[in-house]
This record gives sequence, structure tokens and C-alpha cells, in this order.
Amino acid sequence: MPKLNLDMSRGKPCAEQLALSDAMLAVPAEMLMKTPAGVDARNYAVLDGIDEMKTFLGELMDIPAKNISVGGNSSLNLMFDAIARYMVFGTGNGETPWGQQGKLKWICPVPGYDRHFGITELFGFEMVCVPMTAAGPDMDMVEQLVKDPSVKGMWNIPKYQNPTGITYSDETVRRIANLKPAASDFRVFWDNAYFAHDIYETQDSLLNIFTECEKAGNPDLPLIFSSLSKVTFPGAAISCLASSDNNLAHIRKILSMQTIGSDKVNQLRHLRFFDFSTENFYAHMKKMGEVIRPKFDAVLEILDRRLKGVASWTVPNGGYFVSIDLPNGTAKSVVAKCKEQGVIFTPAGATFPYGDDPNDSNIRIAPTVPPTGELVQAMEVFCDCVLECK
Amino acid sequence: MPKLNLDMSRGKPCAEQLALSDAMLAVPAEMLMKTPAGVDARNYAVLDGIDEMKTFLGELMDIPAKNISVGGNSSLNLMFDAIARYMVFGTGNGETPWGQQGKLKWICPVPGYDRHFGITELFGFEMVCVPMTAAGPDMDMVEQLVKDPSVKGMWNIPKYQNPTGITYSDETVRRIANLKPAASDFRVFWDNAYFAHDIYETQDSLLNIFTECEKAGNPDLPLIFSSLSKVTFPGAAISCLASSDNNLAHIRKILSMQTIGSDKVNQLRHLRFFDFSTENFYAHMKKMGEVIRPKFDAVLEILDRRLKGVASWTVPNGGYFVSIDLPNGTAKSVVAKCKEQGVIFTPAGATFPYGDDPNDSNIRIAPTVPPTGELVQAMEVFCDCVLECK
Repeated sequence: MPKLNLDMSRGKPCAEQLALSDAMLAVPAEMLMKTPAGVDARNYAVLDGIDEMKTFLGELMDIPAKNISVGGNSSLNLMFDAIARYMVFGTGNGETPWGQQGKLKWICPVPGYDRHFGITELFGFEMVCVPMTAAGPDMDMVEQLVKDPSVKGMWNIPKYQNPTGITYSDETVRRIANLKPAASDFRVFWDNAYFAHDIYETQDSLLNIFTECEKAGNPDLPLIFSSLSKVTFPGAAISCLASSDNNLAHIRKILSMQTIGSDKVNQLRHLRFFDFSTENFYAHMKKMGEVIRPKFDAVLEILDRRLKGVASWTVPNGGYFVSIDLPNGTAKSVVAKCKEQGVIFTPAGATFPYGDDPNDSNIRIAPTVPPTGELVQAMEVFCDCVLECK
Repeated sequence: MPKLNLDMSRGKPCAEQLALSDAMLAVPAEMLMKTPAGVDARNYAVLDGIDEMKTFLGELMDIPAKNISVGGNSSLNLMFDAIARYMVFGTGNGETPWGQQGKLKWICPVPGYDRHFGITELFGFEMVCVPMTAAGPDMDMVEQLVKDPSVKGMWNIPKYQNPTGITYSDETVRRIANLKPAASDFRVFWDNAYFAHDIYETQDSLLNIFTECEKAGNPDLPLIFSSLSKVTFPGAAISCLASSDNNLAHIRKILSMQTIGSDKVNQLRHLRFFDFSTENFYAHMKKMGEVIRPKFDAVLEILDRRLKGVASWTVPNGGYFVSIDLPNGTAKSVVAKCKEQGVIFTPAGATFPYGDDPNDSNIRIAPTVPPTGELVQAMEVFCDCVLECK
């Protein structure tokens, strides 16, 4: 058998998913010049998104349009910038900038997203792991941790979490909204990347953190991030940050020095593609889910058939990943063995801060890219290696 | 006479200039999907620009493609980020981050660009003014100032400077390249925004700071910024940062945590529009200049006719501005009087750090936006006000 050459390491849309948005590149030029409100999208002006995009995203996220700030093509960049801003300027309520407060800590639900952990590692936070349960992060631990004033933030992917696919329960969201952190400049980073990324008929629903925090008298607690990267084109979509009036006033003051404005033509291109209709948006997302559903089915079928009793895994209703826990001490060997056979998985440990999975057990499977035939091959190789290493 | 409603405050392209790039919005979808090298522009991957865009910009700027990093739609954002990065992480050669070195200073040629000064003010630098001469900033002063180790940077718009339209002489560029700053983490911020923005037959030429710094054994000195904002669409173009291998290695290490990559579809859109040809690019820029030349002609004719002996002004060969020095102590009153009559100019003082023109004399004229007829009206009002206030 020739050596395989399959990459299952990143959560990327596949060719068929990308093709679903190709019509967006064919929106006629004359529809990209002026916004419905009459703003020339081609020229300077408008700091953080045209009104129509704020309304559209606001409707999707059930957050007032005025509380939404539209960025460029990368929500990761918005998260990085949010932390950089607080490092240098503080959160805007008179507290000392994070960068001048000495050693600080950050809460990291695990397993989680390697790029989140990469950012907080770079900025020098001590990352404190909190295990994910079926209802979200262990909230008893989180409530304890925020009593420490050096704890300044917490990563969250609240819906179809990367990598577990778990959606936070209503109780988890309410407990987060009602946190009483010792640090007044503690912020919940809420990366709602998969807010509309259902795969199956059964869909998870997530409580609205914006509203819950308002109810709890904690309106400034969350910074809510999202994007259309896995809606249209990962390389060329739209990101956004939603937060309280107070947080956004501080952010916009600094942002107005940082840039003259985000790309309005691309915002308009997205809106024209969906014809300004959230209904069209959801119809599009349904097709997205249909493309990758057979891939998730295949992965789950193989795991069920070959690894029952050997490993455990999550069965997500949406998102981009399946998270597998192998027998302790075997994940690294399995990934290495797969690589020898030409099948690339996300490096073992990547789902933990500092790349260090203390149990050497968790592996993230990203089934979206390979065609189903190759995916099946890759998963059979994976199962062979797991059974060899157990 | 009805009250006028004219805005000459910002250096924005006019409608006819924007129209010159409208065909870029009509590049067929199938030409936007794959780069010539075979990268899917729609998907994730490629940190800081597709190879073809680096080659294209490199050719325009006469800098090796490998020394170019392509950003989003805002070069101002690249400058802000560059400073934020050095504040938090330092310049990468083992020096303490700027944010931990106490009070720092920044060299600001005046008159200059308000948004540059806004950034260094926000980051808390003490801005030290150096007057612009006909050959660029007063280099005797600059050479003295960099002996102070708390001086960390210097703003420059070396070609068709905003607002004077002056281009640095070869000697000025060489003296900058040969600076021996006391601080090893001193950086020259080189905002080459108007590198190809000629208006008249007589064109200024600027010595290549990248090459000159290499020759001087100072390769890490400059961070060179530019953009296509005033080439295609200010709201939806391409920015870039060029620097030494050493500087870019440090920047890319951090950038790889900040974003998954810049918008490749928009890079490809630009390249297709120019058909990858710098010749087409220059033909396009020639048309740009032809559109605004009559506007500059009109402004200069009126000034010549009405303010000779009263005020002095620059006569630029390119760029977006004319800089006028009025009798001391009158600039604020003139701008206020113009506003009463419905003509908006850039606020007096804006061309100086902290908005403070010690002579209350300099005014920046941005002639590009109004149609020539209105421009003439506005300039007549301006001259009336100057003559009233002198």
C-alpha cells in the first residue's frame, strides 16, 4: 500500500463547504460601492463596521447592534488585541494596566483551543487548567479561582467547544454571568466561534451571556467574539467583538487611534450574499452542516466499532471536532505512529496549555477536510495505532 | 449666497479616483479562489501575504519579497501594532520592552500627520518636535536627539510628506540610515504612504531606506510601512510592513500568535486587477494623478493670486496635501471663520503633536475631495478669512 498523505490536524472547511460561498465573490461591483445607508464602502470612514453589518450580526447573536464592533478577517486578532490593549492600557475603569500588575493568571478549560493558549502564554499569563465536564468547565473550580485577584481572564468556547463539541449548560452560563471575581478587571473571553455551526438535527442551544451578565449586574464581564470565518471563507470573512457600552467605549477610544476602519466592502459583500437575511444565513449553515455530517458519521461509526471500551470520545451536535481520550500515556505515541503512516493529527498535548497534557491522553480529531473515503482510511490507521499502543 | 457645505479636512480620494478601481470589484469569482502558486485564497493558511503579493509589493518598493509582510486594510494598524508589540515584548534583541523602561521619547517632524502623533500620544511617549526643512526633518537636531537613550523612535513620511508634500533629500535619507542612536531599540518608522502618488510631470524620487540602512550596517533600523489605500480603495485595500530579516523574524513570531493570516482573497483581487503588472500599476497611478492635478492647480493658483506676501505654502509634486503657514497667531481664527461659512478645514494645530502649533500658523489643505468648482469657492473663502485675520 502506498504511504498515505492525509492531514486531519486543523479545523478547516473542505472544498465543498468553501464552494457554498463562491457566489459571494460574484456579487456585482455596483452592489459593493454604497451601503443601503448611503456610506461609500470604498472610501475612508466608519470605525468598526457599517450599521447594516452590526444589525445583521446583532440579530444572529441576539445582541443590540450598538454593542457590536466589526473587525477584519480574524477574530483571533480581536482576542489578541483585546489582551494587548488591557496589558498596555488596562480595562478602562481606572485599574492599573495588566502589564504593570506583576505575574497574572488565566483560567483555561481543558481540553481547549491551542491558539487561545498560545496567546495567553505569549503574554506571560500563568494558565490554570479547569477540566471540561459535559456541562462546560468545572464551575466549582472557576468560582474558587476568581477569588484570586491575580486571575484576570478565562477562555471559553461556549458552543460546540473546540475540541470537545460540548455546549455550556444554562446553569454553567448563569454561574459564569454571576461570578464575583476579586479582580474588577477580570474579563470572560467568550469565543462563540461555532454559534450557528450545527451538524445534526439535534441542535444545542446556548444561553445568551450578554443578557445573563446584564441580569446579574455584571454587564462588563464578557467580551464576546465571533466570526463568519467558518460561514463563508476562513481567509476572507468578518470578525466581531460584542460587549457592554462601557467596555466598547474604552475599546473604541483606543481603536480610533489604531485604525481608520475595518473593511466595509467585504462587510457589504457578505450582506449582499445573504441578501441581508438571517433566514438565508441559516439556510446556508444548514447546507454547511449537511456537507460535513457524513464525515462526522464516519468518524463516530469507526470509533464505535473499533475503540469501544478502549477509548472514550465526545459525540458533538455541531462544530468542527471530535475529542478522544485514549488510555493514559499513549496519545503522543499514537500521533507519532499515525504520522509514520502518513496521517497527520493535531499534536498530542496541543489541547492543553503549554502543549502539556498531564495524562498524555487527549487527541483532537478534525474530520472536515479529507474526503470521506480518505477520512475512513485515516481513521482506520488511527484505530490500528491506538490498539497497538494501548 | 446660501451657506456652503464643503469638507477639505481629510486626505481622501474623490469619487473619480475611486471609480478608477471599480473594475477590481468585478474580477470574476473563479479568478479569486486559487493563487498562481496553488494556494486556496479562501481557506486558512499563509501568515502574512501570498507570495505573489510580496513579489509585487517588493518590486514596487524595491525591497526583497521575503522582507515584506502583508497586512489587512490599514497600514496605520500595522504602525500601531508595531509600537504595541515593542511596548509589551520589546524589539526582540534582548532589550527590555518599551513599556517597562519608564518615560520614553519620540521624534516628530513638524508639521506632520495627526494620526501618527495620536498613536505615540496614546502610548505615552513624550513627543519631541523637529522642524521640516525643504530637504526633510532638520537632521542636525535628529542626530543630537538620538544620543538620548530614552528616544525610541521617529515618525517619517519620506515622500510627499503629509502635510508639506516635501520629499526627503538623498542626504537626509543617508543621514537617517547612518544614525547612531544611543538606544539599540531605537526604530525609524518610515511611512511611505505616497510612494507612487505623483501629481505632476516633475516627480520626486526617494532614496531606498532599506538599502541605505543595509549599506550603513544598520539593517534593523527601519520599519517601512506602505499601503494601496490611495491606490485602490482606502476602506478595502492592502497594507504592508517591510523590514530586515531579523526584525521580521521577531514580528512574525508574535504575529503567528495574533492571527491565522491576512485576507488572501483581497490580495489576489488586487493582483488580478493589475494583472500582476507593475507597469499597469503605474499607468493606474498616472490616471490618479491626472484626476487631482487640476485641483492642486486651482489651489496653488488662488494662493498665488491672493496670498502672495501674506502667507507661505509648499508646492508639492505629489501626495494629498498643501501645507500653508499663515501669519503667526491666526491659524485657529481662520479655520473658525471658514467653518462659520460652511467650509471645514483640518483643525489648526492638528499637524503638531498634542494638537499644539506653537505659532498657531500651519494649516493643512486637502484638495482632493471637492469638485474643482466647489474647491475654488472654498479656497476663495479661505483667502478672504486669511486676509481678514492677518
